[in-house]
Amino acid sequence: MKVLGIDPGTAVTGYGVVEAPNGTPGFGRLIECGVIRLPQRSPLQRRLADLYDEIITLIKRHRPAALALEDAFYHKNVRTTLVLGHARGVVLLAAHQHHLVIAHYPPATVKKAVAGAGGAPKAQVAAMVARLLRLKEAPRPSDAADGVAVALTHIIRT
Amino acid sequence: MKVLGIDPGTAVTGYGVVEAPNGTPGFGRLIECGVIRLPQRSPLQRRLADLYDEIITLIKRHRPAALALEDAFYHKNVRTTLVLGHARGVVLLAAHQHHLVIAHYPPATVKKAVAGAGGAPKAQVAAMVARLLRLKEAPRPSDAADGVAVALTHIIRT
Repeated sequence: MKVLGIDPGTAVTGYGVVEAPNGTPGFGRLIECGVIRLPQRSPLQRRLADLYDEIITLIKRHRPAALALEDAFYHKNVRTTLVLGHARGVVLLAAHQHHLVIAHYPPATVKKAVAGAGGAPKAQVAAMVARLLRLKEAPRPSDAADGVAVALTHIIRT
Repeated sequence: MKVLGIDPGTAVTGYGVVEAPNGTPGFGRLIECGVIRLPQRSPLQRRLADLYDEIITLIKRHRPAALALEDAFYHKNVRTTLVLGHARGVVLLAAHQHHLVIAHYPPATVKKAVAGAGGAPKAQVAAMVARLLRLKEAPRPSDAADGVAVALTHIIRT
Protein backbone atom coordinates (compact mmCIF):
# COMPACT_ATOMS: atom_id res chain seq x y z
CA MET A 1 0.00 0.00 0.00
CA LYS A 2 1.28 3.43 -0.93
CA VAL A 3 0.53 6.53 1.10
CA LEU A 4 0.63 10.05 -0.27
CA GLY A 5 1.59 12.46 2.49
CA ILE A 6 0.85 16.14 1.98
CA ASP A 7 1.81 19.18 4.01
CA PRO A 8 -0.19 21.94 2.32
CA GLY A 9 0.98 25.53 2.36
CA THR A 10 -0.07 28.79 0.80
CA ALA A 11 3.14 29.04 -1.27
CA VAL A 12 4.82 25.62 -1.02
CA THR A 13 3.15 22.24 -0.57
CA GLY A 14 5.40 19.37 0.45
CA TYR A 15 4.62 15.81 -0.53
CA GLY A 16 6.00 12.34 -0.08
CA VAL A 17 4.91 8.96 -1.42
CA VAL A 18 5.86 6.07 0.87
CA GLU A 19 5.18 2.40 0.33
CA ALA A 20 4.19 0.56 3.51
CA PRO A 21 6.50 -2.29 4.50
CA ASN A 22 3.80 -4.99 4.07
CA GLY A 23 5.49 -7.45 6.39
CA THR A 24 9.05 -6.74 5.26
CA PRO A 25 11.42 -5.25 7.86
CA GLY A 26 11.56 -1.52 8.27
CA PHE A 27 9.09 1.32 8.06
CA GLY A 28 8.55 1.37 4.33
CA ARG A 29 10.20 2.69 1.23
CA LEU A 30 10.30 6.24 -0.06
CA ILE A 31 9.04 6.32 -3.65
CA GLU A 32 9.10 10.03 -4.38
CA CYS A 33 9.06 13.31 -2.57
CA GLY A 34 9.20 16.96 -3.48
CA VAL A 35 7.42 20.26 -3.34
CA ILE A 36 4.75 21.97 -5.40
CA ARG A 37 5.56 25.67 -5.57
CA LEU A 38 2.83 28.09 -6.55
CA PRO A 39 3.88 31.47 -7.93
CA GLN A 40 2.55 34.09 -5.53
CA ARG A 41 1.97 36.56 -8.34
CA SER A 42 -0.62 34.30 -10.05
CA PRO A 43 -4.27 34.84 -9.16
CA LEU A 44 -5.45 32.55 -6.36
CA GLN A 45 -7.77 30.54 -8.61
CA ARG A 46 -4.88 29.80 -10.97
CA ARG A 47 -2.69 28.61 -8.10
CA LEU A 48 -5.50 26.41 -6.81
CA ALA A 49 -6.05 24.87 -10.24
CA ASP A 50 -2.30 24.19 -10.58
CA LEU A 51 -2.18 22.57 -7.13
CA TYR A 52 -5.23 20.44 -7.92
CA ASP A 53 -3.70 19.30 -11.22
CA GLU A 54 -0.35 18.48 -9.58
CA ILE A 55 -2.02 16.42 -6.86
CA ILE A 56 -4.01 14.49 -9.45
CA THR A 57 -0.82 13.87 -11.44
CA LEU A 58 0.79 12.40 -8.30
CA ILE A 59 -2.28 10.26 -7.61
CA LYS A 60 -2.32 8.91 -11.16
CA ARG A 61 1.42 8.23 -11.16
CA HIS A 62 1.51 6.32 -7.86
CA ARG A 63 -2.04 5.13 -7.22
CA PRO A 64 -1.79 5.59 -3.45
CA ALA A 65 -4.49 4.01 -1.29
CA ALA A 66 -4.47 6.82 1.23
CA LEU A 67 -3.88 10.53 1.59
CA ALA A 68 -2.29 11.57 4.88
CA LEU A 69 -2.72 15.29 5.41
CA GLU A 70 -0.99 17.38 8.02
CA ASP A 71 -3.55 19.44 9.91
CA ALA A 72 -3.37 23.17 9.51
CA PHE A 73 -1.37 25.18 11.89
CA TYR A 74 -3.68 28.03 12.87
CA HIS A 75 -1.85 31.12 11.83
CA LYS A 76 -2.23 34.26 13.83
CA ASN A 77 -2.88 35.91 10.49
CA VAL A 78 -6.46 34.91 9.73
CA ARG A 79 -6.01 35.79 6.05
CA THR A 80 -3.19 33.21 5.80
CA THR A 81 -5.43 30.65 7.48
CA LEU A 82 -8.16 31.36 4.96
CA VAL A 83 -5.84 30.97 1.95
CA LEU A 84 -4.41 27.79 3.44
CA GLY A 85 -7.99 26.53 3.69
CA HIS A 86 -8.42 27.13 -0.06
CA ALA A 87 -5.36 24.98 -0.80
CA ARG A 88 -6.45 22.21 1.57
CA GLY A 89 -9.90 22.25 -0.03
CA VAL A 90 -8.63 21.39 -3.50
CA VAL A 91 -6.25 18.73 -2.12
CA LEU A 92 -9.13 17.03 -0.29
CA LEU A 93 -11.32 17.31 -3.39
CA ALA A 94 -8.69 15.65 -5.60
CA ALA A 95 -8.18 12.82 -3.10
CA HIS A 96 -11.90 12.23 -2.61
CA GLN A 97 -12.55 12.20 -6.36
CA HIS A 98 -9.92 9.46 -6.72
CA HIS A 99 -11.29 7.39 -3.85
CA LEU A 100 -8.34 7.70 -1.49
CA VAL A 101 -8.84 7.06 2.19
CA ILE A 102 -8.17 10.39 3.90
CA ALA A 103 -6.47 10.73 7.29
CA HIS A 104 -5.59 13.93 9.12
CA TYR A 105 -2.72 14.27 11.57
CA PRO A 106 -1.96 17.24 13.80
CA PRO A 107 1.66 18.49 13.54
CA ALA A 108 2.44 17.29 17.07
CA THR A 109 1.24 13.76 16.21
CA VAL A 110 3.52 13.66 13.16
CA LYS A 111 6.52 14.82 15.21
CA LYS A 112 5.76 12.33 17.95
CA ALA A 113 5.28 9.40 15.55
CA VAL A 114 8.47 10.09 13.62
CA ALA A 115 10.81 11.65 16.17
CA GLY A 116 9.32 10.52 19.48
CA ALA A 117 8.39 13.96 20.78
CA GLY A 118 5.50 16.24 19.84
CA GLY A 119 7.77 19.26 20.15
CA ALA A 120 10.67 17.91 18.09
CA PRO A 121 12.31 20.57 15.88
CA LYS A 122 11.96 20.37 12.10
CA ALA A 123 15.56 19.24 11.51
CA GLN A 124 15.17 16.37 13.95
CA VAL A 125 11.97 15.21 12.24
CA ALA A 126 13.72 15.30 8.85
CA ALA A 127 16.71 13.38 10.26
CA MET A 128 14.42 10.72 11.73
CA VAL A 129 12.53 10.43 8.44
CA ALA A 130 15.88 9.61 6.82
CA ARG A 131 16.76 7.13 9.58
CA LEU A 132 13.44 5.27 9.47
CA LEU A 133 13.36 5.06 5.68
CA ARG A 134 17.11 4.25 5.45
CA LEU A 135 17.89 7.28 3.30
CA LYS A 136 21.44 8.57 3.01
CA GLU A 137 20.28 12.05 3.89
CA ALA A 138 17.15 13.89 4.92
CA PRO A 139 14.71 14.76 2.11
CA ARG A 140 15.08 18.34 0.94
CA PRO A 141 13.71 20.94 0.98
CA SER A 142 12.26 20.68 4.47
CA ASP A 143 8.67 20.92 3.15
CA ALA A 144 9.29 17.69 1.20
CA ALA A 145 10.51 16.06 4.43
CA ASP A 146 7.28 17.21 6.12
CA GLY A 147 5.26 15.51 3.38
CA VAL A 148 7.21 12.29 3.85
CA ALA A 149 6.83 12.55 7.64
CA VAL A 150 3.04 12.65 7.49
CA ALA A 151 2.94 9.68 5.07
CA LEU A 152 5.21 7.79 7.47
CA THR A 153 2.97 8.76 10.39
CA HIS A 154 0.02 7.17 8.64
CA ILE A 155 1.99 3.96 8.09
CA ILE A 156 3.20 3.83 11.70
CA ARG A 157 -0.25 4.50 13.14
CA THR A 158 -2.31 2.12 11.00
CA MET B 1 -24.06 38.32 -19.99
CA LYS B 2 -24.98 36.17 -17.02
CA VAL B 3 -23.30 36.47 -13.65
CA LEU B 4 -23.20 33.70 -11.06
CA GLY B 5 -23.11 35.22 -7.59
CA ILE B 6 -21.95 33.02 -4.73
CA ASP B 7 -21.93 33.59 -1.00
CA PRO B 8 -19.99 30.58 0.27
CA GLY B 9 -20.57 29.19 3.73
CA THR B 10 -19.44 26.20 5.73
CA ALA B 11 -22.97 24.75 5.89
CA VAL B 12 -25.04 26.73 3.39
CA THR B 13 -23.84 28.40 0.18
CA GLY B 14 -26.20 30.92 -1.39
CA TYR B 15 -26.21 31.52 -5.13
CA GLY B 16 -27.96 33.67 -7.68
CA VAL B 17 -27.75 33.84 -11.46
CA VAL B 18 -28.54 37.28 -12.86
CA GLU B 19 -28.57 38.33 -16.48
CA ALA B 20 -27.13 41.80 -17.07
CA PRO B 21 -29.53 44.30 -18.64
CA ASN B 22 -27.43 44.71 -21.83
CA GLY B 23 -28.87 48.10 -22.68
CA THR B 24 -32.44 47.34 -21.65
CA PRO B 25 -33.89 49.34 -18.73
CA GLY B 26 -33.37 48.06 -15.21
CA PHE B 27 -30.63 46.23 -13.39
CA GLY B 28 -31.01 42.83 -14.98
CA ARG B 29 -33.13 39.74 -14.67
CA LEU B 30 -33.00 37.05 -12.02
CA ILE B 31 -32.64 33.66 -13.72
CA GLU B 32 -32.31 31.38 -10.72
CA CYS B 33 -31.35 31.51 -7.10
CA GLY B 34 -31.16 29.11 -4.22
CA VAL B 35 -28.91 27.49 -1.67
CA ILE B 36 -26.59 24.49 -1.63
CA ARG B 37 -26.84 22.82 1.75
CA LEU B 38 -24.11 20.45 2.84
CA PRO B 39 -24.93 17.89 5.52
CA GLN B 40 -22.68 18.65 8.48
CA ARG B 41 -22.40 14.98 9.40
CA SER B 42 -20.69 14.08 6.10
CA PRO B 43 -16.89 14.09 6.03
CA LEU B 44 -15.44 17.40 4.88
CA GLN B 45 -14.06 15.96 1.63
CA ARG B 46 -17.51 14.64 0.72
CA ARG B 47 -19.09 18.03 1.35
CA LEU B 48 -16.44 19.73 -0.74
CA ALA B 49 -16.97 17.31 -3.62
CA ASP B 50 -20.74 17.87 -3.46
CA LEU B 51 -20.27 21.65 -3.45
CA TYR B 52 -17.85 21.44 -6.39
CA ASP B 53 -20.30 19.27 -8.35
CA GLU B 54 -23.24 21.59 -7.62
CA ILE B 55 -21.28 24.66 -8.74
CA ILE B 56 -20.30 22.92 -11.97
CA THR B 57 -23.93 21.93 -12.55
CA LEU B 58 -24.95 25.59 -12.19
CA ILE B 59 -22.17 26.70 -14.55
CA LYS B 60 -23.18 24.14 -17.17
CA ARG B 61 -26.86 25.03 -16.87
CA HIS B 62 -26.45 28.80 -17.22
CA ARG B 63 -23.04 29.34 -18.88
CA PRO B 64 -22.32 32.51 -16.88
CA ALA B 65 -19.45 34.71 -18.05
CA ALA B 66 -18.43 35.69 -14.54
CA LEU B 67 -18.36 34.45 -10.98
CA ALA B 68 -18.94 37.13 -8.35
CA LEU B 69 -17.82 35.89 -4.96
CA GLU B 70 -18.54 37.50 -1.64
CA ASP B 71 -15.32 37.87 0.31
CA ALA B 72 -15.01 35.90 3.48
CA PHE B 73 -16.06 37.41 6.72
CA TYR B 74 -13.17 36.65 9.05
CA HIS B 75 -14.71 34.64 11.83
CA LYS B 76 -13.35 34.97 15.30
CA ASN B 77 -13.33 31.20 15.25
CA VAL B 78 -10.23 30.41 13.21
CA ARG B 79 -11.41 26.84 12.61
CA THR B 80 -14.57 28.19 10.92
CA THR B 81 -12.40 30.48 8.78
CA LEU B 82 -10.27 27.51 7.74
CA VAL B 83 -13.29 25.38 6.76
CA LEU B 84 -14.78 28.33 4.89
CA GLY B 85 -11.49 28.57 3.01
CA HIS B 86 -11.88 24.92 1.93
CA ALA B 87 -15.34 25.69 0.48
CA ARG B 88 -14.15 28.84 -1.29
CA GLY B 89 -11.22 26.91 -2.73
CA VAL B 90 -13.40 24.41 -4.58
CA VAL B 91 -15.75 27.17 -5.80
CA LEU B 92 -12.80 29.11 -7.26
CA LEU B 93 -11.41 25.91 -8.78
CA ALA B 94 -14.71 25.09 -10.52
CA ALA B 95 -15.03 28.64 -11.89
CA HIS B 96 -11.43 28.78 -13.10
CA GLN B 97 -11.71 25.40 -14.79
CA HIS B 98 -14.73 26.68 -16.71
CA HIS B 99 -13.03 29.93 -17.73
CA LEU B 100 -15.24 32.31 -15.79
CA VAL B 101 -13.97 35.77 -14.99
CA ILE B 102 -13.71 35.90 -11.21
CA ALA B 103 -14.47 38.99 -9.13
CA HIS B 104 -14.38 39.32 -5.36
CA TYR B 105 -16.48 41.76 -3.38
CA PRO B 106 -16.23 42.54 0.32
CA PRO B 107 -19.57 42.30 2.18
CA ALA B 108 -19.66 46.09 2.73
CA THR B 109 -19.23 46.70 -1.00
CA VAL B 110 -22.17 44.40 -1.78
CA LYS B 111 -24.36 46.15 0.79
CA LYS B 112 -23.37 49.57 -0.47
CA ALA B 113 -23.93 48.67 -4.15
CA VAL B 114 -27.35 47.14 -3.56
CA ALA B 115 -28.75 49.05 -0.58
CA GLY B 116 -26.69 52.26 -0.63
CA ALA B 117 -24.97 51.75 2.73
CA GLY B 118 -22.08 49.45 3.67
CA GLY B 119 -23.72 48.73 7.01
CA ALA B 120 -27.20 47.94 5.70
CA PRO B 121 -28.90 45.07 7.54
CA LYS B 122 -29.50 41.76 5.76
CA ALA B 123 -33.27 42.28 5.39
CA GLN B 124 -32.76 45.66 3.73
CA VAL B 125 -30.27 44.18 1.27
CA ALA B 126 -32.76 41.42 0.40
CA ALA B 127 -35.58 43.97 -0.02
CA MET B 128 -33.43 46.11 -2.32
CA VAL B 129 -32.45 43.04 -4.36
CA ALA B 130 -36.18 42.48 -4.94
CA ARG B 131 -36.73 46.14 -5.80
CA LEU B 132 -33.86 46.38 -8.28
CA LEU B 133 -34.74 43.11 -10.02
CA ARG B 134 -38.50 43.82 -9.93
CA LEU B 135 -39.29 40.71 -7.95
CA LYS B 136 -42.58 40.40 -6.07
CA GLU B 137 -40.72 39.45 -2.91
CA ALA B 138 -37.18 39.08 -1.62
CA PRO B 139 -35.42 35.85 -2.57
CA ARG B 140 -35.50 33.29 0.19
CA PRO B 141 -33.80 31.96 2.19
CA SER B 142 -31.60 34.93 3.01
CA ASP B 143 -28.46 33.12 1.83
CA ALA B 144 -29.98 32.92 -1.65
CA ALA B 145 -30.64 36.69 -1.50
CA ASP B 146 -26.96 37.17 -0.58
CA GLY B 147 -25.93 35.20 -3.66
CA VAL B 148 -28.18 37.35 -5.85
CA ALA B 149 -26.87 40.54 -4.18
CA VAL B 150 -23.25 39.77 -5.04
CA ALA B 151 -24.17 38.94 -8.67
CA LEU B 152 -26.05 42.24 -8.84
CA THR B 153 -23.06 44.06 -7.35
CA HIS B 154 -20.89 42.76 -10.16
CA ILE B 155 -23.39 44.01 -12.75
CA ILE B 156 -23.70 47.43 -11.12
CA ARG B 157 -19.96 47.87 -10.76
CA THR B 158 -18.84 46.73 -14.21
